This record gives sequence, structure tokens and C-alpha cells, in this order.
Amino acid sequence: MKDRWLLPAGIAEILPDEAAYLETLRRRLLDLYASWGYELVIPPMIEYLESLLVDRGDALDLQTFKLTDQLSGRLMGVCADMTPQVARIDAHHLKRDVPTRLCYLGSVLHTRPNNFAGSRSPMQVGAELYGYEGIAGDVEVLSLMLETLRETGLTEFHVDVGHVSIYQNLIKQTSLNPTEKDQLLDAIKRKASAEIHSLLSKVSPPLRDMLSELVQLNGDSSVLKEARQVFSSAPPEILMALDELEHLSAELSHVPLHFDLAESRGYNYHTGVVFAAYIPKYGQAIAKGGRYDISGKLFGRKRPATGFSTNLKTLASLLPETTPPKPAAIFAPAQCDAVKQLRQKGEVVICGLPDQQGDARAMGCNRELRLTADGWQVFDL
Amino acid sequence: MKDRWLLPAGIAEILPDEAAYLETLRRRLLDLYASWGYELVIPPMIEYLESLLVDRGDALDLQTFKLTDQLSGRLMGVCADMTPQVARIDAHHLKRDVPTRLCYLGSVLHTRPNNFAGSRSPMQVGAELYGYEGIAGDVEVLSLMLETLRETGLTEFHVDVGHVSIYQNLIKQTSLNPTEKDQLLDAIKRKASAEIHSLLSKVSPPLRDMLSELVQLNGDSSVLKEARQVFSSAPPEILMALDELEHLSAELSHVPLHFDLAESRGYNYHTGVVFAAYIPKYGQAIAKGGRYDISGKLFGRKRPATGFSTNLKTLASLLPETTPPKPAAIFAPAQCDAVKQLRQKGEVVICGLPDQQGDARAMGCNRELRLTADGWQVFDL
Repeated sequence: MKDRWLLPAGIAEILPDEAAYLETLRRRLLDLYASWGYELVIPPMIEYLESLLVDRGDALDLQTFKLTDQLSGRLMGVCADMTPQVARIDAHHLKRDVPTRLCYLGSVLHTRPNNFAGSRSPMQVGAELYGYEGIAGDVEVLSLMLETLRETGLTEFHVDVGHVSIYQNLIKQTSLNPTEKDQLLDAIKRKASAEIHSLLSKVSPPLRDMLSELVQLNGDSSVLKEARQVFSSAPPEILMALDELEHLSAELSHVPLHFDLAESRGYNYHTGVVFAAYIPKYGQAIAKGGRYDISGKLFGRKRPATGFSTNLKTLASLLPETTPPKPAAIFAPAQCDAVKQLRQKGEVVICGLPDQQGDARAMGCNRELRLTADGWQVFDL
Repeated sequence: MKDRWLLPAGIAEILPDEAAYLETLRRRLLDLYASWGYELVIPPMIEYLESLLVDRGDALDLQTFKLTDQLSGRLMGVCADMTPQVARIDAHHLKRDVPTRLCYLGSVLHTRPNNFAGSRSPMQVGAELYGYEGIAGDVEVLSLMLETLRETGLTEFHVDVGHVSIYQNLIKQTSLNPTEKDQLLDAIKRKASAEIHSLLSKVSPPLRDMLSELVQLNGDSSVLKEARQVFSSAPPEILMALDELEHLSAELSHVPLHFDLAESRGYNYHTGVVFAAYIPKYGQAIAKGGRYDISGKLFGRKRPATGFSTNLKTLASLLPETTPPKPAAIFAPAQCDAVKQLRQKGEVVICGLPDQQGDARAMGCNRELRLTADGWQVFDL
């Protein structure tokens, strides 16, 4: 009985001030996306497990709550990430040939919090651009991600940019066995130079040099010039990746971009440019995204895709003022036409109830309606 | 592979036109509730099972999907009805003494659809008034429910009104055993007069007459006058219920109310006035509510409550035009300041991507930005 109001770890109820603020942010972001041509879709909360986990590997599987469908006896999952669902809506339901811009916003559930004391019920919001494979698409979604942060009032952020095909194309040319590849990837993530050097002893130059120099290639856009030299004899896929990063760097020269050419961590389904935004004093990315061209076998249709997503609750919690002043209400002693008119003008009008507890002030009103010789009028309290 | 896009029965994905419409309705309703002083709260999607199922009996239990919490090992449920959660937010978190007005809107999940081909994922929206036990509170929430229907464009509806304490106070005075009580309730629900007559043979007048006449007491407000005669010797609780219904009838004389004093079906946790709105050609109530004063043992605090809820998806589907015209977009050959300004003015501007498939028209644009000698200008396509 006593703990009936205790909530599970990482699960919270949202009280009026925060809820009003989240609703304001929600509207501003959806209006922003609409003005860029991104149309809202609402994916289902539950689906058959095999629809949810397409091609996403173990991480999403572990994050997904499983349920048995009493109607079909089949296993279902509660949506933990809307991105694959939105990709399916594009590929299977909309079936357009033109570039298709979609956005989404809703609560998802995770079996475990992403970080210590983190939420298990993020409010995921994001935008996706399908049907266009050029770097201009990535520039657009990254720009929209930055606009999202600015719209929510965040100004001091920096953006990490990588390109997963650089590492992927280097590693696939080595003769390392799967265990060694895993060890190398792990060492590269930790930027552990000595380990990388020893793991690369079996690889011959110039591949060895390119792989070992990879971890050094991080910093501002001057890194891209260095990379041109390091990868002068690299396969064409890597040179194309550098072309893309240079294009992105030029288009977004007004934004502090941090390039990390060894980047691959946490982007396990991505296929091209990847990016993540960070702010001071928050250990994790506050928004991330990138390119993940979808193979045809997944939804019956090959489709290039790039997009980003973030957690509205995180954005709201990071802002300096999380409780904007509430509109002060007007107290009305009874329902009357004046009440209706004031409400239509956008005022909050709370009607008194006979013999109620507490007065107008106790209910957050700073004005009241009074009947005068000239009809109902609003007076300060 | 082939059925990867098949969704479970009663589960749907919402495509752009419908999603845009639902978002519009959502905003209009939340703005309406805010203007009446109802503050938005967002209850959690999952909770420990015993928190979700407080005092609501088997029906809600059967409708609730169960999950195991990997962090605590305890059983959790996915929210199937937000009403008990919002009651807890009022009683345990806000702890105000004044009348407290809250509203909520979000997706809930049901293990089974409510009706044939129905949804298992309604978008529940509703408003609740706590801390006031007079009938004026019920009049307010019923008025707000009707305003909700009008705001969504529904005009032809009628409202059934009952009062659960009439039947409850009659039955508790009989000496019928629990099985006989169940049989009588069942017969009354079916308005099966012969059965009722036979089941009441053990009950002596005037109680027998009052119970047997109950099923006749349905119709417009003239029913309340008849009831005064039928219940002239009834216990004071029943006379108070009639007082309340008469007050409500007088306050809402402009609305077509249908009184049914035998009403008890489907209101298993209610304690006073109950009401439901119906429209032609839709077999179920489209919105319903009533009083459910909460006993102190549930959340540590006794608290009168009255409210209503409805399903936003149902409301949207009933409206004549479910696809309002989309704002026609402007095509821009490239990002420029003019694009930014147009978007800030509320226009949808879609930027062209180099070598993309399809032209401006194919993407739903009816105008385009062109660079002229006088700068960027908008032209019809």
C-alpha cells in the first residue's frame, strides 16, 4: 500500500510546469520541421518483434521490452527506437520516388537506462530524409539538427563528425581474423596507440600506416587536409568519403565542427557521414544522426536515408529556465459569456465552485471577473 | 521477410495527412483545457502493476500488458488507462487543498481491442477535477466534454446521464445473496422486465416497486419528475442523487440529455453522476466520464474526483473531413536567407538537392523561389 506511488527506476511522471514546457518545445520543433517540409508520422507503440529489430543487431534487441500478443500468440516488442519504423513507413507505405522528408516525436521505452540514473522512457524526436544519397542530404539534416538545438535555446554546443566508411574500408582490406578485428576496433575506440601498433604488426604498409594514423586524425577541418596525404593511396571509397566531409565542412563553415575520422562507436547501422552534438557538462551526445542507406531486402525497396534524433526530455532538462512563467489566470465567480470571450482571447479563466476550498489567489489567479453596472469586467486582485 | 511490415491487429501507423490532423486536434484540445484552467500532466508509460491497477478490478487488469522489470525483477504494466495515474499525481504529488484541474493526452495500450476491428492503442485524452465534491464540479467537466466534441467539429451527439448511487443504494437494502444480486444487475442491464419481476419476488414493497420501476426511468428530464414519485420513500442518498441530477439538468438545459436511472454498466469505479456521449452510426460511447470519489486508502488521501476521457483517434476518424488541405509548399533551388525568412513567416519551404529525383510539383510545391535582378522572389509554378 505504502509504496503505491513509487515509480520504477528511470521512469517519471511529468508534473504541470514541466509538461507545459515540454508541450511548448514539442510545438516549436514540429513547426520547425514542418517549415522545412518534414511531415509528421506516428509509428506504432508495439509491433511484432521481427519488424522492430530489422538489421539493428543486439543492442536494440536488449533495449526492447517483449510482450506476447494475446490475439496471435506472436512475440511483440515495445518501440525502443522509432527510426526503423519511420524507414518502413517511407519504404513500404509512402513509396514515393522523390526525396521524402519525415519527422516523428513520441515516447519510447528502454529495458535499461542508457546511463547511470538515466531515463528509460525518452521522448524521441527526430527527422529523416529518404531517397537522396548525396552529401547535400546529410548537410540538410545536420543543419536541421543544429536548428533544433538553437530552437530549444541551446547555443554552446560542438559537433563531432565522422564517416564510418573510412574505417570500414580500411579494415576490410586487412587479413585480420574476426577476433583481431574486434580487438583493433576496441583499441581504436580507446585511441590506445601502443595496442594498435602491436595489433597491426601482421598488416603490411601502406595499409598499416593508414590504420595506425587514423586515431590521430581528429580535430578541426585541417584534419581533412592531413587525411588527403595519409590516404593518398587509399581505395576510392575512402577518397569519396573525404570528398563528402570536405563538402560538409565547407557548407557548415559557420559551425564549430570536430572531425574524428576513426569514429565508429555507437553508429552500428550507419553507412556514411555520422555526427553528434555535445554540450559542456553533459557526458553524452545530446543529439546524433547520420547516413544509413537501407538495403532493399529489409523492406522490399533499397532506399538511401539520413537523419538525426534527440530526446526532448533531455533538451528540456538542459535549458537554463525549465519553468517559464505560467500565464496568470482570471477567476470567475460563475460561468457567463464574458468567461467564454476571455478564453477565446487566449486567457485562462478558472470558474469558482460553490463553497469550494481556497480562494482565487490559491488557484494561481492574479485577476478576477466582477459584475459591474457596465457588465462583467476584469480587476486585478 | 515478406510480412515485415504487417502490424499486429488493432495497431496502426499514422501517415502524414492523418498525423498532421491529429496534431492540430491535439493542440486545439490542450489549448481549450488550458483556457479552462486544466493543467497538462504526462503520466508514465509503464509502472509497477499494483500502482496501475488500484481499485479498478479485473477489467483493467485484463486490458493491461505485463512486463518484467529487469532492474527490480518486479512485474510492471503498460498504461491502459491514464485516469488512476492522474489521480495519484493529484493526491500524492501536487497535494493541493484547492480544487485541482488536470488534463492528459497520450497513447495507451490494450491487450485486446474494445470492439470488433477496434484499436488496441487509443490516444486517450481527458480532463479531471479533484478536490470538489459538489455537483457543480460534474457540470463543469461534462460541459468541458461537450466543448471537446464541439471543438473537434462534432455537433450531432446526445448524452446519456445516470447516477450509480441510485441502484447501489437500492440493492444494498435488499436481502438478496450475491448470486441473486448479480442476476438482478444483469437483468436490469438488459431491461428484462419479466426476469426482474421474478428475481424480486423475495423483496418486499416498497423496495420491490422501486427496483422494478428503475428500468422504466429513462428518457428526457421528465424522468426526474417521475423518479420523485417512485422514490418518495427512498433513503436520503437516493433523494440526494435526484437533487444532483435535477441541478445538472437545469444547468445544461440547452443540451439534449437522456437520463437512465438504472445506468451502472461500464462504470465500475464510479460513485455518483455518470455520463456518456453518443453520435449516430457509432455503436459505442465516443466520450464518457463521471464522479469517482477516491477513498483515502488508495493514495493516502481521500479526494473527491470527477472527469471524462475520450480517444483522439476515434474523434478524428468520425469527422467529415479527415484530410484538411495541406499548406502548399515553396520550392527553393538552394538554401539562402530568403528561405529562412519565408519559413519564419510560416511558409513551408523545401530545398532542392543536386540531381534529385522528381521536381518541385512532385514534392507538393505550388510555388518556387527564383533569383531575379531584385533578389529572391516567389513565383507560382
